[in-house]
Amino acid sequence: MYKNLSPGAIGIRCGFVEGLDLAQKAGFGGADLNLGEAQKLADEKGVDAVLQLYTERGLEMGGWGLPTDWRGTDAAFFESLGKLPAQAKLANELGCFRTMTWMVGWSDDLTRKEHFDQNVRRFRLIAEILREYGHSFGLEFIGPRTSRAPHMYGFVYTMDGMLTLCCAIGTGNVGLLFDVWHWYTAQSTLDDVRKLTAEDVVYVHINDAPAGVNVLDQIDNQRCLPGETGVIPNGDLLRILNEIGYDGPVTVEPFNQPLREIAERDPLEAARVTSRSLDKVFAEGGLQNR
Amino acid sequence: MYKNLSPGAIGIRCGFVEGLDLAQKAGFGGADLNLGEAQKLADEKGVDAVLQLYTERGLEMGGWGLPTDWRGTDAAFFESLGKLPAQAKLANELGCFRTMTWMVGWSDDLTRKEHFDQNVRRFRLIAEILREYGHSFGLEFIGPRTSRAPHMYGFVYTMDGMLTLCCAIGTGNVGLLFDVWHWYTAQSTLDDVRKLTAEDVVYVHINDAPAGVNVLDQIDNQRCLPGETGVIPNGDLLRILNEIGYDGPVTVEPFNQPLREIAERDPLEAARVTSRSLDKVFAEGGLQNR
Amino acid sequence: MYKNLSPGAIGIRCGFVEGLDLAQKAGFGGADLNLGEAQKLADEKGVDAVLQLYTERGLEMGGWGLPTDWRGTDAAFFESLGKLPAQAKLANELGCFRTMTWMVGWSDDLTRKEHFDQNVRRFRLIAEILREYGHSFGLEFIGPRTSRAPHMYGFVYTMDGMLTLCCAIGTGNVGLLFDVWHWYTAQSTLDDVRKLTAEDVVYVHINDAPAGVNVLDQIDNQRCLPGETGVIPNGDLLRILNEIGYDGPVTVEPFNQPLREIAERDPLEAARVTSRSLDKVFAEGGLQNR
Amino acid sequence: MYKNLSPGAIGIRCGFVEGLDLAQKAGFGGADLNLGEAQKLADEKGVDAVLQLYTERGLEMGGWGLPTDWRGTDAAFFESLGKLPAQAKLANELGCFRTMTWMVGWSDDLTRKEHFDQNVRRFRLIAEILREYGHSFGLEFIGPRTSRAPHMYGFVYTMDGMLTLCCAIGTGNVGLLFDVWHWYTAQSTLDDVRKLTAEDVVYVHINDAPAGVNVLDQIDNQRCLPGETGVIPNGDLLRILNEIGYDGPVTVEPFNQPLREIAERDPLEAARVTSRSLDKVFAEGGLQNR
Repeated sequence: MYKNLSPGAIGIRCGFVEGLDLAQKAGFGGADLNLGEAQKLADEKGVDAVLQLYTERGLEMGGWGLPTDWRGTDAAFFESLGKLPAQAKLANELGCFRTMTWMVGWSDDLTRKEHFDQNVRRFRLIAEILREYGHSFGLEFIGPRTSRAPHMYGFVYTMDGMLTLCCAIGTGNVGLLFDVWHWYTAQSTLDDVRKLTAEDVVYVHINDAPAGVNVLDQIDNQRCLPGETGVIPNGDLLRILNEIGYDGPVTVEPFNQPLREIAERDPLEAARVTSRSLDKVFAEGGLQNR
Repeated sequence: MYKNLSPGAIGIRCGFVEGLDLAQKAGFGGADLNLGEAQKLADEKGVDAVLQLYTERGLEMGGWGLPTDWRGTDAAFFESLGKLPAQAKLANELGCFRTMTWMVGWSDDLTRKEHFDQNVRRFRLIAEILREYGHSFGLEFIGPRTSRAPHMYGFVYTMDGMLTLCCAIGTGNVGLLFDVWHWYTAQSTLDDVRKLTAEDVVYVHINDAPAGVNVLDQIDNQRCLPGETGVIPNGDLLRILNEIGYDGPVTVEPFNQPLREIAERDPLEAARVTSRSLDKVFAEGGLQNR
Repeated sequence: MYKNLSPGAIGIRCGFVEGLDLAQKAGFGGADLNLGEAQKLADEKGVDAVLQLYTERGLEMGGWGLPTDWRGTDAAFFESLGKLPAQAKLANELGCFRTMTWMVGWSDDLTRKEHFDQNVRRFRLIAEILREYGHSFGLEFIGPRTSRAPHMYGFVYTMDGMLTLCCAIGTGNVGLLFDVWHWYTAQSTLDDVRKLTAEDVVYVHINDAPAGVNVLDQIDNQRCLPGETGVIPNGDLLRILNEIGYDGPVTVEPFNQPLREIAERDPLEAARVTSRSLDKVFAEGGLQNR
Repeated sequence: MYKNLSPGAIGIRCGFVEGLDLAQKAGFGGADLNLGEAQKLADEKGVDAVLQLYTERGLEMGGWGLPTDWRGTDAAFFESLGKLPAQAKLANELGCFRTMTWMVGWSDDLTRKEHFDQNVRRFRLIAEILREYGHSFGLEFIGPRTSRAPHMYGFVYTMDGMLTLCCAIGTGNVGLLFDVWHWYTAQSTLDDVRKLTAEDVVYVHINDAPAGVNVLDQIDNQRCLPGETGVIPNGDLLRILNEIGYDGPVTVEPFNQPLREIAERDPLEAARVTSRSLDKVFAEGGLQNR
């Protein structure tokens, strides 16, 4: 496992290369791939130029956010799916084999069965294309009760449900974007994390939760930095992820207002604060930044 | 909804007709169908004779436990599946349209994907036959962490996971055997029950949990009678089930030693104790025994 | 059934409206829809303006050729699939509910199984979108032995194979573009046409075959006008199609050099020759141009 | 390829061991496995005793007829399917890896789509079990027009249709029981046989057709011995089968009254007549009995 920077996830607005500089300076082991900017650069200067950005900074590849519009109309979905083969090919050439997206556990329009059918059909088409280019595809479930309670229809919102959905997709390269916040708010257990395999986990998000709030009342965009409160047992979780063989990026996505303010004022400081928070929980989990 | 008696579920050993007598005397509104004994009786005296057992006691049909050996070898499974059409036909003629089974959320042999593939394949074959005869098929998930923690591989153990599995089966007549104990131990929420539809719920089990035990440390066969401790919000759950349109049997399955002892000594008393426990939570939920 | 004009199919190069004029003047009952030109016109003057082109000439809608690039790469396929919902919607608004394409029965790259998997997957996606807009989708098999013999791998080339493929697609709205030439060269029988249902036949092509050529030696682009040689029993075929309830367009696609020459010199004359050839076989089949 | 004896197929009524004796005496290279009798023998004396019957006579294993009742009710199908794992296991232990059945191309009850759905579902379950034990599964299409013409609904009746059905089953171990009679009556071509792979052909039946009868008027149970009339190009077919890599049994199934009469009077003579007919067409095809 390695500390991975996704600048946007901590509120830093910056270009792709600038983000890689921040990652290096703040002591991260890896950084996400901005596929759009990487494409432009590769078109101009070749794939090697992009690779060099990582190697000369001693950074590993993190992941690339799935660019496909799988939530829209059939027209929008298929049109964007037509672009995926080229995108997946580029990511393959760059050696970045983890892509991911998040999926909400509710709808006001689609019944559970309609939601299931549409998502399985679309994710299967996506995953088949990704598989041709060697990619794993991580799906993030959204755990907070407060997010889905107001909506009409329910859908998958737990680790258990998402792993079942992955089985239904059935392509063999789909697993979790495992976000400890959603694991916590959906009230799964450490024992259930122990039962995961390395293939089940495509990407990891960590963060912490405000203290003094009932787990069922936690609000999705009010989180803390890893190790900040200790509500979420990040050290235990990282130790277990290591034991099951996960060796990929660990990214902080705290939806945290104070950090956002730092990020706007001083991006490098925000990156450093984030990096230190990861050091703390890596140490709790007995891990080193690879 | 109606108070339903499954004699074996509270430790009463008795014949089919004897059980119907107990249900009537203890004030139940319905009783499960023992399909094996019903078959013998129907063979001897006709289907109407079985129906009369219910009508003359003013009892509704509860459910019939799925007799198919879906956990065994392919040989055992298919052989028993060959008997299902006749069984489903008889239950149809008797007007008993709810059948159910339970499914454990772990394995020491099958990986999650193997478990999923085998169960979806078999449940689909079962559900297709059941559908031809008008039956709903309820699957019970097993919630306690303590049950699955010792095992090698995980599988579906939450309401969310089971509903996803039902979507994957895809036959349209598969839903939950909703057992409040498993809902509680798997830590689902009342809001998620509110999102169920009447079709999602095929059959209901209620019971209570020992007080003073952490939810993650509850042991599957150590339960209490409904309303005994108030750990499980049975009144709220019944109210919500009523609101979403569930109108079927509510059966107590308490795995409770003291009740078992009463049942061995005095079956009618055990039935009455159980019936009164249902009265209590029905009242809490603002329901009447239909 | 009605005599339908597809100008390009008989070698006439003309605009959409010009083609409708030719159809009217030559006594056709219907004409194919050029969806691209119809779209332009609808964008400018509205859907009703397109409809009026047909109604004021007393013409029925024929079919619209499937515009989706289902033979190309995944990228090309999905990109063009993204345009299908809007195309299908327009055709629906114009009341033209038959779309079709042809499929070759061989490959030099794809094994039969790979060919099957790719085509079933793609045709299913296409047919699902078409179904939402009420369309039937006709697939044309290619019968001549001489066309497929030189190629490496075989695939579907008979009416029987194509109907089986339609079952495998499984969407319920896929059937045959029934071309009598391919029925003849693949050596099916009149009895097998009698077993078709109206839903099996989406669109009909008729033409005749050169006399004095062994059926296995016929060449795909050397055909005759309907009734020209009598090698293909067009009268019998039309009679049977009528009996099974087919009531759609009947289009001549003769791949015939003399007719092409007439078409280049005098389009109206080519349309009239074609129309008269249809009159002849309609009469043989006991039909009237609806 | 080797000359294979299936005594029943030429009208010989005899026990399993007696049939093996006839095969040896008449110069066959192999003989079909009677799985029921082999089971009894294996139960009494062990699997090796059955194997020895073949080795001491210098015979190869032919095939074993699929014993599963896949045409009946769900109840009958599943009950017999329950016996298949043990049957497939025994055949595996005996080294006999080809099993087969025939499928008619019509129905008076099931529409084409219903027929397709039922058969694909059942054949897939069968093929999955067979695959676990290493077996190939050959399906025979029934070609004569005269057989299916009187029936209500059509279904698969050509080589092309059957290969498409095999793709739809999709288990990878299903191919043709290739009977030259059905190839001939369904009017396929030699070129289409050239496109088969070794995996496409599980088992081969050969015979000839009466001379002077139009191919569409041939009657299914009025056939001739291989090479008797030369209507069916058995030499060419065997040569092509050899070229594509088929190396299994070649069995005569002539439905021939004169041979039946010989078989009743003098079984060995019938076997010898049959063996000589195979010698003739093997020679025409440039083959030796392996």
